[in-house]
Parts: sequence; C-alpha cells; structure tokens
Amino acid sequence: MKKLQGIAASNGIAIAKAYRLEHPDLTVEKQTIENPAEQVSRFQQALAKAKEELKAIQAHALKELGEDKAAIFSAHLLVLSDPELVQAVEQKIEQERVNAEFALHDVASMFIAMFEAMDNEYMKERAADIRDVTKRVLAHLLGVTISNPSMVTEEVVVIAEDLTPSDTAQLNRKYVKGFTTDIGGRTSHSAIMARSMEIPAVVGTKEATATIQNGDIVIIDGLDGEVIVNPTEEIIAQYEQKRAAFAAQKAEWAKLVHEQTTTKDGHHVELAANIGTPNDVEGVLANGAEGIGLYRTEFLYMGRNELPTEEEQFEAYKTVLEKMEGKPVVVRTLDIGGDKELPYLDLPKEMNPFLGFRAIRLCLDMQQMFRTQLRALLRASVYGNLKVMFPMIATLDEFRQAKAILLEEKEKLVAEGVPVSDEIEVGMMVEIPAAAVLADQFAKEVDFFSIGTNDLIQYTMASDRMNERVSYLYQPYNPAILRLIYNVIEAAHKEGKWVGMCGEMAGEQLAVPILLAFGLDEFSMSATSILRVRSQLKKLSKQEAEQVKNHILSLATADEVVRFVKETFNV
Amino acid sequence: MKKLQGIAASNGIAIAKAYRLEHPDLTVEKQTIENPAEQVSRFQQALAKAKEELKAIQAHALKELGEDKAAIFSAHLLVLSDPELVQAVEQKIEQERVNAEFALHDVASMFIAMFEAMDNEYMKERAADIRDVTKRVLAHLLGVTISNPSMVTEEVVVIAEDLTPSDTAQLNRKYVKGFTTDIGGRTSHSAIMARSMEIPAVVGTKEATATIQNGDIVIIDGLDGEVIVNPTEEIIAQYEQKRAAFAAQKAEWAKLVHEQTTTKDGHHVELAANIGTPNDVEGVLANGAEGIGLYRTEFLYMGRNELPTEEEQFEAYKTVLEKMEGKPVVVRTLDIGGDKELPYLDLPKEMNPFLGFRAIRLCLDMQQMFRTQLRALLRASVYGNLKVMFPMIATLDEFRQAKAILLEEKEKLVAEGVPVSDEIEVGMMVEIPAAAVLADQFAKEVDFFSIGTNDLIQYTMASDRMNERVSYLYQPYNPAILRLIYNVIEAAHKEGKWVGMCGEMAGEQLAVPILLAFGLDEFSMSATSILRVRSQLKKLSKQEAEQVKNHILSLATADEVVRFVKETFNV
Repeated sequence: MKKLQGIAASNGIAIAKAYRLEHPDLTVEKQTIENPAEQVSRFQQALAKAKEELKAIQAHALKELGEDKAAIFSAHLLVLSDPELVQAVEQKIEQERVNAEFALHDVASMFIAMFEAMDNEYMKERAADIRDVTKRVLAHLLGVTISNPSMVTEEVVVIAEDLTPSDTAQLNRKYVKGFTTDIGGRTSHSAIMARSMEIPAVVGTKEATATIQNGDIVIIDGLDGEVIVNPTEEIIAQYEQKRAAFAAQKAEWAKLVHEQTTTKDGHHVELAANIGTPNDVEGVLANGAEGIGLYRTEFLYMGRNELPTEEEQFEAYKTVLEKMEGKPVVVRTLDIGGDKELPYLDLPKEMNPFLGFRAIRLCLDMQQMFRTQLRALLRASVYGNLKVMFPMIATLDEFRQAKAILLEEKEKLVAEGVPVSDEIEVGMMVEIPAAAVLADQFAKEVDFFSIGTNDLIQYTMASDRMNERVSYLYQPYNPAILRLIYNVIEAAHKEGKWVGMCGEMAGEQLAVPILLAFGLDEFSMSATSILRVRSQLKKLSKQEAEQVKNHILSLATADEVVRFVKETFNV
Repeated sequence: MKKLQGIAASNGIAIAKAYRLEHPDLTVEKQTIENPAEQVSRFQQALAKAKEELKAIQAHALKELGEDKAAIFSAHLLVLSDPELVQAVEQKIEQERVNAEFALHDVASMFIAMFEAMDNEYMKERAADIRDVTKRVLAHLLGVTISNPSMVTEEVVVIAEDLTPSDTAQLNRKYVKGFTTDIGGRTSHSAIMARSMEIPAVVGTKEATATIQNGDIVIIDGLDGEVIVNPTEEIIAQYEQKRAAFAAQKAEWAKLVHEQTTTKDGHHVELAANIGTPNDVEGVLANGAEGIGLYRTEFLYMGRNELPTEEEQFEAYKTVLEKMEGKPVVVRTLDIGGDKELPYLDLPKEMNPFLGFRAIRLCLDMQQMFRTQLRALLRASVYGNLKVMFPMIATLDEFRQAKAILLEEKEKLVAEGVPVSDEIEVGMMVEIPAAAVLADQFAKEVDFFSIGTNDLIQYTMASDRMNERVSYLYQPYNPAILRLIYNVIEAAHKEGKWVGMCGEMAGEQLAVPILLAFGLDEFSMSATSILRVRSQLKKLSKQEAEQVKNHILSLATADEVVRFVKETFNV
C-alpha cells in the first residue's frame, strides 16, 4: 500500500482498477536498408492495422460517446487515407533507402511543421491530427502499445501524467470513475473537466504514473487530495464508509435545493452559477442556483469557422434568459484572445498572451463583432433579467467606451422599433489590479462589479496560473488579494452598488466565511458547488464573521490567513 | 515639408539626410528550370558577391565599430563558406530542377527551422545568422538592394520600421545623428538604445518609412517627438536655434554636476543612476549622480556560455563599489528568466514569460547560483557602501527566504575569516502589485524599497509593455499606479525606511513633481537624465507639491492626472 498526496481537484471518492494512459517512447532511429520493398510492405501493414483499430474505436466512440467525440477519429482515418502522406513515405523509403519508421517520422514531421507554421488554428489542428495518427502507426511499426481510453469497458480510475483535451475527449464517463495526474493544479484543464464531469480527481501528485501499475486497485480521494495504491481490505472499507458519508452529505445538501441562501443570523446572499452554454442551465436549476453569475459567451464563438451571427447569439441568450424565468443572468461579453484563440480571427501570436490583446481590448478594436453581440443581447433582454458585464476592464475609459457602444446599439434598436428592456444593469469584471485599486472611481459609473479571482490573482501575484513552476504563487488567501477584494466591495457599497464574484474562489470552503465577512453580495460558482456552499452559509453568522474581518486584513501571509480561518470557522 | 508626430524617445535635435534602413521584399517563387548548370552558376555568382560585400563590411566595421561588432560579419562569412549549406542548395537545383532562389530559400528555411527547434540560444543565433546571410544572397539573386548601415560614411538620420538589436549593432555612432521608427514606445529596445547612445530619437511615428525617402532632409525633434521631412530654410533655422537652446540648457545643467539635489524649499532627495556594467560608472560620475540606485547584475551572466565565477563577480562588484567611493550602490540580485534568457541554463519555454519563472523565483530554486552571487557581493561589501535588493518579490516568504540565504552566506564567510561589512542594507524591488498592496507588512522586514515602475505598471494594468497592441494601457499616470506608489512610500516611512524608484518613470519630467509630493527619497534613472532632473527639482517646492497630493490621488484617469500636473507645475 502506498499513499500519494496531491491537490484535491474534484470532490468525491472513487475506488477502482488503475488504467494507465500511456504515452510510450516512440523514438525512431535512422537505418539504411537493403530492401525497400520490404519496408514499404511493413509500412502498409502498420497502416492497415492502424486503420482497422481506428475504425473499431470510431464505432465504439459513436455508440458510447456520441457523434461529436467520434468525429476526431474520422479525421484521423482521413489522414491515413491521404495519398500525399502515404506516397511521400513510400517514396522516401525507396529513394533514400531508409527504414519505414524513419521515413514515416520524417515525412510526418515535415507535414506537422508545415501545418503548424501556418499560424491558423484550423491548420494547427491538422498538425495535431497527423501527430496523433503518426504515433498510432509508429507504435505498430515499433511493436509498442498505445492507450485507447475510449475502448475501456470496465470501471477504472485513469492514471496519467496529465490529461490533454484530446485525451479527455476519449474518456467514457460510464466507466471512468475518477482520475489522478502527476501535474496540474486546481485550475488546470483536467481539474476543471473533472468537476464538470462530477468525478473525483486528484491532480499534481508528481509520482502517480511512476507508482501505479495497470490493474492496481486505487482509491482517489478527491475530498482530501489523496491517492491510495493497493489499499488493504481495511482501508478500502474505511474509504467505502467515507464515500457513503459523502453521498449522505450530498443527499443532505440536495434538500436545500429550493431553499433561500440565508446565514444563521438571517443575512441573505445570492448563490449563482457559472455557465458556458444554454445546455448548462439544466444543471443550474437542478442545483437550486438563484441566478447565473457568469455566462461565458465565448463558447458561442469557439469550435467553428466564422463568427456566430446576431441571430444565433440572440437565440442562445434568449434560451438562457427564458429558462431562468426572471432570475438574474449576468452575461460576460466576449472574452477571447490571449490563450483562448479564435482561428478565424487570425490574431497575431503574442509573447505574453495573458498580458495581451484580449477581451474588451479586442472588442473595442473589432467593433463590428462587438456590436453584433451587444445587439443580440439587447434583443434578448426582454425575455428575462439580463445584466451585461465587460471583461478585462483596466481603465475607466475602456468602461465608458464599451458602455457608450452598448447604449448606441440600444438606441438604434429602439429606433428600429425593436423592444429592448430598460432594466439592463451594466457592470464589469474586476480582474485587473488597476481596476481593483481604483474601484471607488469605477463604482460611480457601473451598476455592479463581478470579481474574477482567477485572473485577479495571477496579475496581482504576477504569476501565470497555468505555469507549474510558479504555481506556488497562485495564492487566493494572500492578504494582498484579500485587501483588493475588500476594497472593491467597500467601494461598491459606498456607491450603493452590488458585488459578485465569479472566480474559482467563490465556491471554496475556506473563502466563504471571509467573503461573507467582507460583505460579498453574490457568489457565483460551478453549479455542483452551490448546495455545499448553501449548507455552509446556513451555519455561518455574518455578524460573527465581520468581527474578525480586520484581523484577517492585518495578516501578513497566505499561510497565516489559512490557519486563522481554519481555526476560527472550523473548516 | 511634412510633419510626423511620434513618441519622444531620446532628447535632442538632429538635422541630417535620411538613410532608410531597408528590408526589401525577398519573396521567392518556385520555378521549374531546364538548365540546372546555369542556376548553379547564378547561385555561385550571388554567393561570391555576397562574400565580397561581407568582407568589405567586416573590414569597415573593424575599423569603425571595433572587434565586437565586426564579429557578427565573420560569423556570416563562415555560414557562406559552409559546404553543407552550399552543396545542399546545388543538389536541390540539380535534382529537383528548380531555380536558385527557390533552392536557396528552401534549404535555408530547413536549416533555420532545424536550428530554431533546438531550444538552445546559441543554436538560435546560428538560425539568425543563416537568415541574415540568406537575405543577402537572395538580394543578389533577385537584384534588389539591402541596407548596409555599417557602411555609412556621412552624417545621417536613420529611418526604419523598427530597429532590431542586429540593426543597431551595425550603426556607427560617428555618423548616425538620430533616428526615427514607425513602431515602438518609450521603453522599446530602440528607445532605450537611443538614450544610451545619447542621440535624439522619435519612435512610433507609424508612417516614417512610408513618408521619407533616401536623401530627404529630416529633422528629428527628440524633445517634442516630432519629425519634419524636407523642412524649409526657415524651419531649419528655427530648429538650429532650438538645438542651440537645448545645447545651452545642457551646458547650464552641466554646472549642477557637483551640486546637491535640493528643492526650492530646502528638501534634499537623492538622485542616483541605473547601471549595467562597471564601465557605466564613468557616466554616472560624469553626470553627478549621488549614488547607484540600480545595478543590473544580469549583464555579468549574459553573452557567455557558463555562469560567471564568484571571483569574476567579486571583481565587478568591487570595481563599482570602489569607483563610487562610498556613495550608495544598490545591487539587484540576478533578474533573469522571462524574456531575459541565459542559454546555458536551458530553462523551459514558457507561455507567458513575464508571469513566469524568473528573478528571485528562479534564484530561490537554483540556490547554488544565487549563493555564489551573494558571496561575491558580501566579499565586495567592504570596498564601499553596498545595499542589496531582491527582484520580483511577491510574498513575504520569498523575501524572508532570500534574506536568510544571504545571512547564511555571510555567517559562512565570517567563519572563514573573510571580512564582510556589517552595514549592508537589504531591501527589495516593489514591482509586483501584491508587494505594493502589502507594503506595510513588507516595510517591517526590509531596510528599503525600490519601486520598479516598468514591471509594476505592466502587471497592474495586465498589459505587456512590449506588445504594441496594448501599449495604450502602459499608463504611468494611471491613478491606480500612483496610489500604489504612494502606498509604498507611506508604508515605508511609517516604519522609518526609505524608498527609491528605479523604473523609467523616476526620470520623467511629469513624474518628478508627483513623486516629490509623495515623498520619494531616491530617484534612480539613466545617468544622462540626472542633471535635467536636478535642475527641475531645484525649481520645485516640496511643500507646494504636497498640497496637491490628495487631489492627484482622487483623480479617475491618467489623462486627468497629466492635465492637472501639466497645469499645476508648468511642465
């Protein structure tokens, strides 16, 4: 039995056999060969096997994962049937008298380099396809095994160095009960995905793949961030109990679904959910959210070849507003650029995309695109309780410009006789330190703030939250962050405005009492966290929390804050 | 006559003939040819011409620019004599029956891609060499002209889209009287270089290259950021006068070289200089600096193949301390990583280097390297007035760790019987918003702060200062920045500590009265700015400045601040 410590990335306990997601060594050596025909034949055989395999995976994926996820394998099959690639490999074998592995690797590298150099996201995906497919054929040539997670047909927990989007696309929710990775943090792709799949996950264990073999029995404790390998019967029984207790707790939380969110001393706060698409509204309502605190509209723009039309957007916004039946829906205008690319906009590469041309900066420049989104929002506004907010506002000028454009579009629509609500609140994300520091000035002009902690933390600490080597600086409880949050709330309240928070932090057990003490009005989080937080808030007293506010703000390090909050609020 | 408006990047007025730094279109088309021998011969001729040209340039550069700068052309000549490259081009022509231009371009691209993929700075430089040389040969094949700025033999002002480090390496200070570029800002490479060369420059004119032809007479007004093309005699006379007035002003300033820096009402502040190498001390003393406010030690580590030894560092630090004869010397420990790479450390590429593993983050990890630097500093401390500061401190833990390591090394040296000063102050850079917000906590543990505005602004505004598209957000006068600066000064003074500033801002005419009002103790800047600032400070009253402090802090936008300060202080 061995225990690994990692980062609790998604709640719950899973106990199952280990399934290692392998990325075997596919290093290739150049060999001069005598018999090119033999190598061509080896290549053709490997190709045939890879095709067979892909067809089986595709059929399986279609049945188990749906059309969307099966599509990736169709793309792979297409690559394998591309005469340009196949012929180039055969020619290289024949002309240069090299082994099939080397010829394939060399030709594929050339195609990959070519597509990647194209600076166009669609072409880059072709590069990724070729890379995936080449690996599969190479594995056959080299006689090594690669993982096909989509073919799993029993309950497993997945063990991997990291999970890429392409890996996770192949995971079957029916069989994958949890996972653990060597790298990653709470806001890494794999962690966010685990929470949305609602399966337990522990990330950043550093040595999961070095420790765990296929078939080992593994406990993933997503509550305490622990991974136990080949536990004794006794330990398994203990964790079965922990799992049952967690299930019971979840059942208890489920009873709160139709309740108001009220503290022990009768203070009401709003618990809202973050969503990406209209489909997510179902989960929002099922978890008893009192509103949507963040609707990330960029998903409407992603995974396609052109901008969405005003009509498409209108339909999406209308659907969300209608389904929410008058509950508040805070829509964030397009937040792309930086790491979130839209291939068809063909934006230049940036040295530091997180400090670059993104979100409102890009929208104020590409006004036609921005205006289309605003028109769609304004038209949808009559179907519910719409609030609009702008992302990445750094200066008052930016907010004024964005708001002016919104009002212009509103006037135009009204002049066209299109009904538009007069009750739309216009606010902004506070995620740039400058905005947090100057919140008193902004508060005079906005209707509300929503604090985006993920970005606010990374800018305030000058630390890329996706970069493992500086992840120790991603400190939500650093007193500097807490002071900025408090400053924003105080400044807003002085002007009679409300403040929400839509970053990861709003749903954290440790953060809830602090944010209550600071007077946060709206907490927006993953829908799956809402009932847990509602339950926590019911046991807290706002008055009591307020009494330690100044002490928290006077502490010097994140460790001091965490220790104090744990002791004081028993979390 | 035409006038262009740009950004005043370096003081002074230059009037001379335009010299366009051309980067001609070297696009190549693939052609199938009949007579490979003819193409091989064309290639060889172009090669020969390029070699001849390079030899001439090399000889000229050796004479006019010195060995260092001539070395780049030796490297280029080596590339042209590399049989691997030459033969590959000839083979391609012969085997694939393509034109010489295409064959050269194709082969060179392959070599460049190969070297660039190597993830090693030395090899990447080889890629740059091949790129430069290929351009030269291609130009001969295509019959177009490329610029050879090192061959200029008359007084000129250089007109370019932008100046790269490789361009500027070739500029001859004797003949280049000023320059103007289409792009760039006050902190761009070309602007910083202009200030260190002490030649007038206007950057970011957007249309200099589109407007100005070779031989046009051009006035570069680096005082007001204007470029005048083909001025009338009258205008020339007017600017000759302005140039004379500026020269007179400089002469006036020169008289202040041995004076104290004292305001009209008798308040003393310290004017210090930023340096990179011991050679810079000469300019520091010549300009009457009262100390060195920032010694950037990374230059000791750059442009070489291994870490500098303790002895080498000791010699450099000792030299600076001795030359400064007891005046304060603030040494910043190694600030590399991010955009400043050390090839031999072989650090991984990062998505957002400005938010990455750099400076103190890297030093706390690579402790052997850090300890060697600290030992060298400690040993040198007895030769002058040494103060040590750590860059990129985000948390108290980091400062405590860094200081503890310094004290450990001191104890070891003392135990070894090596003399170490007991007067070394230990401080930190404030360049991360978290540190500025939490300055009161840091102030209890540091001996001093030095505010690094370049980084502080870029993090606070979440805007890469090297990225043209978001350069509008690089706002030194944004009230959020000013509030953070004021917070740092106030917090330090409450604990009886002093505060310096070593970012670009400390030498800005507009910033000086604000910083005086805020109580800044030490202003550190380019040596060439010191006398100008001393002259400005002599005319200001600290008491009067303090009276508008609260008003400045209550403003909402950078524009409001700039307007108010201009009016109030007549700058």
